[in-house]
Amino acid sequence: MKLIFIRHGQSEWNALNQFTGWVDVALSEQGLQEAKDAGKKIKAAGIEFDVAFTSVLTRAIKTCNIVLEESEQLWVPQIKSWRLNERNYGALQGLNKAETAEKYGDEQVHIWRRSYDTLPPLLEETDPRSAVNDRRYANLEKQTIPGGENLKVTLERAMPFWQDEIAPALLDHKTVLVAAHGNSLRALAKYIEGISDEEIMNLEIPTGQPLVYELSDDLKVEKKYYL
Amino acid sequence: MKLIFIRHGQSEWNALNQFTGWVDVALSEQGLQEAKDAGKKIKAAGIEFDVAFTSVLTRAIKTCNIVLEESEQLWVPQIKSWRLNERNYGALQGLNKAETAEKYGDEQVHIWRRSYDTLPPLLEETDPRSAVNDRRYANLEKQTIPGGENLKVTLERAMPFWQDEIAPALLDHKTVLVAAHGNSLRALAKYIEGISDEEIMNLEIPTGQPLVYELSDDLKVEKKYYL
Repeated sequence: MKLIFIRHGQSEWNALNQFTGWVDVALSEQGLQEAKDAGKKIKAAGIEFDVAFTSVLTRAIKTCNIVLEESEQLWVPQIKSWRLNERNYGALQGLNKAETAEKYGDEQVHIWRRSYDTLPPLLEETDPRSAVNDRRYANLEKQTIPGGENLKVTLERAMPFWQDEIAPALLDHKTVLVAAHGNSLRALAKYIEGISDEEIMNLEIPTGQPLVYELSDDLKVEKKYYL
Repeated sequence: MKLIFIRHGQSEWNALNQFTGWVDVALSEQGLQEAKDAGKKIKAAGIEFDVAFTSVLTRAIKTCNIVLEESEQLWVPQIKSWRLNERNYGALQGLNKAETAEKYGDEQVHIWRRSYDTLPPLLEETDPRSAVNDRRYANLEKQTIPGGENLKVTLERAMPFWQDEIAPALLDHKTVLVAAHGNSLRALAKYIEGISDEEIMNLEIPTGQPLVYELSDDLKVEKKYYL
């Protein structure tokens, strides 16, 4: 069984150093190129997907589509789920990281970015940035939609998708692509690799580098490498 | 209920005047632009999709993706099926239309192109062009994979997808996008509009022009127009 993670490349807000989270920002030119390069590496490695999973955020879907197209398998079934979304950064979304550090102090910002279980300031439902008003979440109860997440909560809401979609596909001996985000992939990696709460924030999955897990029949990691 | 058809634009083989069918040819630059323009029209018309259906051929999927991205709804669920593929042109696939007319005569080529129920010369399973060897059809029995189709057969294999996927979505009051091909869309239009076997070959759905059907509760056509 093979599971391949791809973290989307640079977005327009990464380039501006802004907290992004669930805001639906497009890939930058550099991000588009990173996705193309990832697709070429997958083609060169001869990896043939059976199914692709991605979030409902444009930058991950676009990365997924480019990877599939460049590796000549755009026909592969694709399933999009909010459970693979980036960590919701709450009321920090849209703020410049340097300005936020000036306002709240470096230490507080470091905690929000690096603590496993500290929540960011939450978004009010009435805030125009709230996902409650976004049509793509219209089939979710309001109380299901987070106002802000830490990595722990991100992992908890990603797990049902792992359990019900990704793991069954792997157990069915499918080769699986997951095109997602820094923190949703980090959350899945924590579970798959059994990384502790303390260690997980040190794991950085580089953008645009396909990460391959070769798994045993009971989904234990046998090999892990970047293409 | 709203059903929107989009026929993919020019492919690299349309530009070369070759029979294409199930051969997985990319869109030309003109075809990519047609898809972008269609997406802009859909955005301007304020059409919000709930689900998108497309074939397993790159030129239709790419059209679907561009339309969704340009209309800012790339997150919409997308389902790909071989049942929405272009008519399989059998052993004519890859041949230049003018050369084929020289070899078989204008009249025979006219019949292959315009008859409702005349099959083209069939592809052998051993032919490298046969879909039997293509990984995207690996989950189909060999006898399910056509060696060549007329419009009648194209309609018969598209109907189960209409019945099981498209019609249920419409009956669930969803707004539906179908991004497909000249003949698979013609087949669906024949059914929806109740067009006769004799008349259907005169129906030309233009490329890149979103075709909107407004339907009654029992899926009868109330309005039909191009954006």
